[in-house]
Amino acid sequence: MTKTVGKRTLRFHTPPVITGHYAIVGKKEAEGPLQKWFDQSIEEGHFGEKTWEMAESKLLETAALGAVQNAGLSLEDIACYFGGDLLNQCVCTSYAMRSLEIPLFGLYGACSTMAESLIGGSVFLDGQFGNHVLCATSSHFCAAERQFRFPLEYGSQRTPTSQWTVTGAGACVLSAQGEGPCITYATVGKVVDAGVTDCNNMGAAMAPAACDTLVSFFSDTGFSPKDYDMILTGDLGQIGKELLSRLLLKNGIDITDRAEDAGCLIFDPDTQDTHAGGSGCGCSASVLNSYILKQMREKTWQKILFLATGALMSTTLSQQGESIPAIAHLVQLEGGRTQ
Amino acid sequence: MTKTVGKRTLRFHTPPVITGHYAIVGKKEAEGPLQKWFDQSIEEGHFGEKTWEMAESKLLETAALGAVQNAGLSLEDIACYFGGDLLNQCVCTSYAMRSLEIPLFGLYGACSTMAESLIGGSVFLDGQFGNHVLCATSSHFCAAERQFRFPLEYGSQRTPTSQWTVTGAGACVLSAQGEGPCITYATVGKVVDAGVTDCNNMGAAMAPAACDTLVSFFSDTGFSPKDYDMILTGDLGQIGKELLSRLLLKNGIDITDRAEDAGCLIFDPDTQDTHAGGSGCGCSASVLNSYILKQMREKTWQKILFLATGALMSTTLSQQGESIPAIAHLVQLEGGRTQ
Repeated sequence: MTKTVGKRTLRFHTPPVITGHYAIVGKKEAEGPLQKWFDQSIEEGHFGEKTWEMAESKLLETAALGAVQNAGLSLEDIACYFGGDLLNQCVCTSYAMRSLEIPLFGLYGACSTMAESLIGGSVFLDGQFGNHVLCATSSHFCAAERQFRFPLEYGSQRTPTSQWTVTGAGACVLSAQGEGPCITYATVGKVVDAGVTDCNNMGAAMAPAACDTLVSFFSDTGFSPKDYDMILTGDLGQIGKELLSRLLLKNGIDITDRAEDAGCLIFDPDTQDTHAGGSGCGCSASVLNSYILKQMREKTWQKILFLATGALMSTTLSQQGESIPAIAHLVQLEGGRTQ
Repeated sequence: MTKTVGKRTLRFHTPPVITGHYAIVGKKEAEGPLQKWFDQSIEEGHFGEKTWEMAESKLLETAALGAVQNAGLSLEDIACYFGGDLLNQCVCTSYAMRSLEIPLFGLYGACSTMAESLIGGSVFLDGQFGNHVLCATSSHFCAAERQFRFPLEYGSQRTPTSQWTVTGAGACVLSAQGEGPCITYATVGKVVDAGVTDCNNMGAAMAPAACDTLVSFFSDTGFSPKDYDMILTGDLGQIGKELLSRLLLKNGIDITDRAEDAGCLIFDPDTQDTHAGGSGCGCSASVLNSYILKQMREKTWQKILFLATGALMSTTLSQQGESIPAIAHLVQLEGGRTQ
């Protein structure tokens, strides 16, 4: 007997509970539509550090500590940390973990990391390997743009399909017992490469992976979009979000009236010049761990599918002319487990 | 009740069994002391591909398929793939997974990835989330040297403490049931930064992390080095291996008469000019999945601690003057579960 439903969906017997969460963002993010939901924002991108990379590391550390405190726990209570980030060799995570001193299960899922960390943590807890874990990730506009595209000093023109990497971090504590929204199902994503070679159009690269995961999940479980208050994708942005809806319609699935995307929610494209929307590991992480989870706790929403998407590209392979593989990991969030 | 022993060691109730394994290496590795144990070797670094990165991807794909075949299974039987690699954004893994079409749980642990993948896979199987998983990783000398140090065309002089990144990949199938060596305990590593800033002395950077994990494991379980036929570290190389033994002696633990290191085993330093030994994710992966597991199946060894070590460095942070954080993940391998 395994805890699986259909071909590849996991069902948690004792659904892990999100007992604490925290989101910290940059100045631009704090000026956007979700302003009031974030726990903390920073005034300047360096956050008191010498480099953007170390600033991102400090954002992540702050989010992790905030989530632990929000759960009423201390770091010693945390059995394991599940997370990674966008920087080469996930250094933001490694450097943050120097001071946290928690066992680290390092992940790489690009912008899908928040959902991947929730799956890893849920498998760990439901398998009875601990009582509390931390799930977290981050990104930083300046560090990511320099690494993946151009140094900011070039002042490069951005294409209309491009997204704006969110400066921010989100973290949550998953617990084997407790009160709060819980994780009941998960689907681990497959790599899907639709042949997109434009690293300024990640929405198009990621939408087919999101479609693959959602189609599998609905097929495995027999559930349908109408069972959910919201289907929240990671950071498809405006272009990827529309593409996903169209791809799903071809599969007979209509999510249009309940589809939201963290990349579309976090910025106001009319006033913030962010083109197709937000992106980066910190995008879905900061939106989930503030706007979404706070309102699930307030019972605004009862049931949400959270589907974080990642473009698994590197500059080396892009320069070699390779297309962009993508992945999307899914978790089902339900309000109200209370023991 | 949790499946933990002491502070941070996991104990598997139904120890996952290694039912298949495969190792493929480059020409230099195949000329070394472990020659006869590898399943396959390639004559030229490109392996028929246009780039070293895609060659590494093909090595990984070959190892994964080899392990699945060795287990008598097909790809459809695999519930999830646990793995990552050294290249920026773990592209070697992502690109290999385009054709394998298995759910991917992407990891980043640098050269500790083989042990991390075994832990992830074991937690997944012991938690009853599937029947078979793949655990795999790889590295490529040319791709890694270019990324982390200098383009090979420079012909840079290598320092005496430097290690030689192994060209190779190793994979194994972990199964919930079956015959073969099994995984009974695991300890997830913590990030330890001893302040080493020399990216050509990874052994020194990683030894303190290995020490931390081993001390925790022995303290958690009450086991001691004499309980094992071998304590195999990942790729500390000659310098890191000696350093680890000395650090452990300070903690009252003597592993000197049973310590082996994959980085020391894979090359002959006298004839192969590899300085401090082998390194890279593919080092411990190819040694474990050939030399070690074949001899465990032959009952040469009954009980081995496998401790893969990773230097979590990036060129960006190194150039900013930061020191190198390291991590070491541990699994206990035992021969002979037979159902």
